[in-house]
Amino acid sequence: MNSHFRLRLLSELVGTALLLCIVIGSGIMGVNLSQGNDAIALLANTMATVFGLYVLIELFGPIGGAHFNPVVTAIMVLLKRQPKPEFLPYLLAQLIGAALGAWLANLMFGLEPIQASTKVREGLGIWVGEVTATFGLITVILLGNAQRVSSLVAAYIGAAYWFTSSTSFANPAAVFGRMFSDTFAGIAPESSMSFVMAECLGGLLALGFFQLIAKPNEKVT
Amino acid sequence: MNSHFRLRLLSELVGTALLLCIVIGSGIMGVNLSQGNDAIALLANTMATVFGLYVLIELFGPIGGAHFNPVVTAIMVLLKRQPKPEFLPYLLAQLIGAALGAWLANLMFGLEPIQASTKVREGLGIWVGEVTATFGLITVILLGNAQRVSSLVAAYIGAAYWFTSSTSFANPAAVFGRMFSDTFAGIAPESSMSFVMAECLGGLLALGFFQLIAKPNEKVT
Amino acid sequence: MNSHFRLRLLSELVGTALLLCIVIGSGIMGVNLSQGNDAIALLANTMATVFGLYVLIELFGPIGGAHFNPVVTAIMVLLKRQPKPEFLPYLLAQLIGAALGAWLANLMFGLEPIQASTKVREGLGIWVGEVTATFGLITVILLGNAQRVSSLVAAYIGAAYWFTSSTSFANPAAVFGRMFSDTFAGIAPESSMSFVMAECLGGLLALGFFQLIAKPNEKVT
Amino acid sequence: MNSHFRLRLLSELVGTALLLCIVIGSGIMGVNLSQGNDAIALLANTMATVFGLYVLIELFGPIGGAHFNPVVTAIMVLLKRQPKPEFLPYLLAQLIGAALGAWLANLMFGLEPIQASTKVREGLGIWVGEVTATFGLITVILLGNAQRVSSLVAAYIGAAYWFTSSTSFANPAAVFGRMFSDTFAGIAPESSMSFVMAECLGGLLALGFFQLIAKPNEKVT
Repeated sequence: MNSHFRLRLLSELVGTALLLCIVIGSGIMGVNLSQGNDAIALLANTMATVFGLYVLIELFGPIGGAHFNPVVTAIMVLLKRQPKPEFLPYLLAQLIGAALGAWLANLMFGLEPIQASTKVREGLGIWVGEVTATFGLITVILLGNAQRVSSLVAAYIGAAYWFTSSTSFANPAAVFGRMFSDTFAGIAPESSMSFVMAECLGGLLALGFFQLIAKPNEKVT
Repeated sequence: MNSHFRLRLLSELVGTALLLCIVIGSGIMGVNLSQGNDAIALLANTMATVFGLYVLIELFGPIGGAHFNPVVTAIMVLLKRQPKPEFLPYLLAQLIGAALGAWLANLMFGLEPIQASTKVREGLGIWVGEVTATFGLITVILLGNAQRVSSLVAAYIGAAYWFTSSTSFANPAAVFGRMFSDTFAGIAPESSMSFVMAECLGGLLALGFFQLIAKPNEKVT
Repeated sequence: MNSHFRLRLLSELVGTALLLCIVIGSGIMGVNLSQGNDAIALLANTMATVFGLYVLIELFGPIGGAHFNPVVTAIMVLLKRQPKPEFLPYLLAQLIGAALGAWLANLMFGLEPIQASTKVREGLGIWVGEVTATFGLITVILLGNAQRVSSLVAAYIGAAYWFTSSTSFANPAAVFGRMFSDTFAGIAPESSMSFVMAECLGGLLALGFFQLIAKPNEKVT
Repeated sequence: MNSHFRLRLLSELVGTALLLCIVIGSGIMGVNLSQGNDAIALLANTMATVFGLYVLIELFGPIGGAHFNPVVTAIMVLLKRQPKPEFLPYLLAQLIGAALGAWLANLMFGLEPIQASTKVREGLGIWVGEVTATFGLITVILLGNAQRVSSLVAAYIGAAYWFTSSTSFANPAAVFGRMFSDTFAGIAPESSMSFVMAECLGGLLALGFFQLIAKPNEKVT
């Protein structure tokens, strides 16, 4: 493993850690302050996530690509934009980062650093929501102007937190990290597998849509 | 119908579906979480719509023009920027997309997929609001810098959700889609025709204002 | 009066009308929906104003300069960037526009179209707030990058609605228009003169600061 | 001291004063209007700070660098991007500006102009929050694209107000200014020293991370 690849993995790990720390931390703060009005907590959670994603993609995009998300990495591999052997190291960096971010958020807010979420998220509507959320995210990444990917992804997630019934995890690493926090943004381990499957399905649908709609020179053949 | 035109229609259909899904879905989520405080629900609905519109126009603008709106297409035809025979296919794609988006939002949130809104929206003030809203939208599209149309349209709608008494539908396809959802963002079928007429009037007023104020080479003669 | 100057006046009139319609209309909608929580009403009012200002400056800046504000026009005259005889016609266009905008907002929301505000706004703190607000606005216009003036002014006003005790009118035309609406955004006629004086003082302080800090070739001598 | 350096110090002083005035003033307004719902007050405080920071960095960046923050200045000195003897004058300008801004905010809102905060902020979680907040801020400044530093810093702080348990002061001058305001945004003098130490630690960690990850030609040797 050469030093540049180590740097890219570090970029994914730190970026994913900060992303999860932002998502979980702002969820905790939102609930702490909003007197039981979940709409206000989610507004705060959304705003923090939008601002944070924009910044993280701007900072870490030029170093490691700013995937922070195994579905994104898998799609890049399928489109032959990234070599296949890089998938597993990327996945590991993302999962470790996600767990570290959850741990840091819990630590900052004086909660048990290691905890398991009890927030069950399931049902057909929610799974359809998660498929839709991930379809949208991957479509944004594949069709959007690469120069504006930080704004586009941040804005998309800002919308998807509200218009999808799952509040748009759209990211198996986020599912993994959120399992470790029994808070507003958490997800119970028993709900996680179906979320990850829905996300993979959404990603594949987006890939199919891209193959249908993209210019010939951008497709995989 | 050549394959490029089919692609443009697909772009309008998918884009309009996602737009309506965003508008209706975030309205449902907003109401579900906001404990009866409609201002908070509308804030969330606005934020999701602004972010979503920005992304959709960025993604689908280069493919099909990102009208998502028959008034916009009609104005483009009147200004001879688009051939007249394209109007009807565009209109159909937009209406089908809008209905699909409403259906998807209802599905995600576990509601009856096909429903009719019972939310009556009428009165002189509201109709004046809808004329104003559409006048503004078309003026933004015609006078705004084309490079920034995604930000301009998104920001305009973000303002118009609040400053117009109709909460700014400004789009007959949106009226059509919202008829199929008996939720916060819905509109009763019996209110729809006057909304569409107000929107057409607003569009024509904007066209007149544009002819008055635009540089000679941009006008229709 | 040549036709280009008439166009510029029309641009000021329509832009100021829409600005006041946005400010007053979103104030009414905010109060209607927010169940007495003025912070939520002001958040909505702020968001609509920020989005609206950005759009209006983008649209009308290239035509008439997008002052919408007699203090801005006066500063441009003092800096010799605009001929002195244009001040009065600009002022009239702005005042007429402001009154029309208030009238339209009242009409849309089913209120008496012509009304006088009863909202008294006075006191040393509020006047200091209004001086500060206008000092800030003019400083933003004079020191900010002209390419980004739409974002800068919109963002500034978004901050100033909250950090100044007067909620930042910073514009005698806005004071004039808001006198005609007995709503959240209104100002009682007896409070208006001291607001206008505070705004003129803030503008002059900003001009002095600019002369101190600007590059020699930008100053007036 | 030559006239250009005096201008840079004035830029730091005025900019820091306006920053603190925005932070404290919008905190007061938020609490005044939000009927005890601190989440709404913090949303308003966040929005005003994000918009304000963006504008202040745009305006004063080209003149004095728009640090408004001794940790930023210290990092610039350590990276040899700024001469060491400038540190103390910059620090003084920042502290004086911060105190003036607090004074102005208190004056505008009719509070005692000079007051001492009684808001105790302490505990391991909060200190970890403040280390994290400052680590993030300095990382954004060092790794972010310099062309977009105003948006990046503003967005980062918008996220950090929510995801860090300390609400992200991340700035010893802000700590200093906020000591003089016994309001929502204040900090009790006895809590200030540990905040400043946490901020210094966060800045040093960010510097270490930068040395690890940056391109060779950007590092200090």
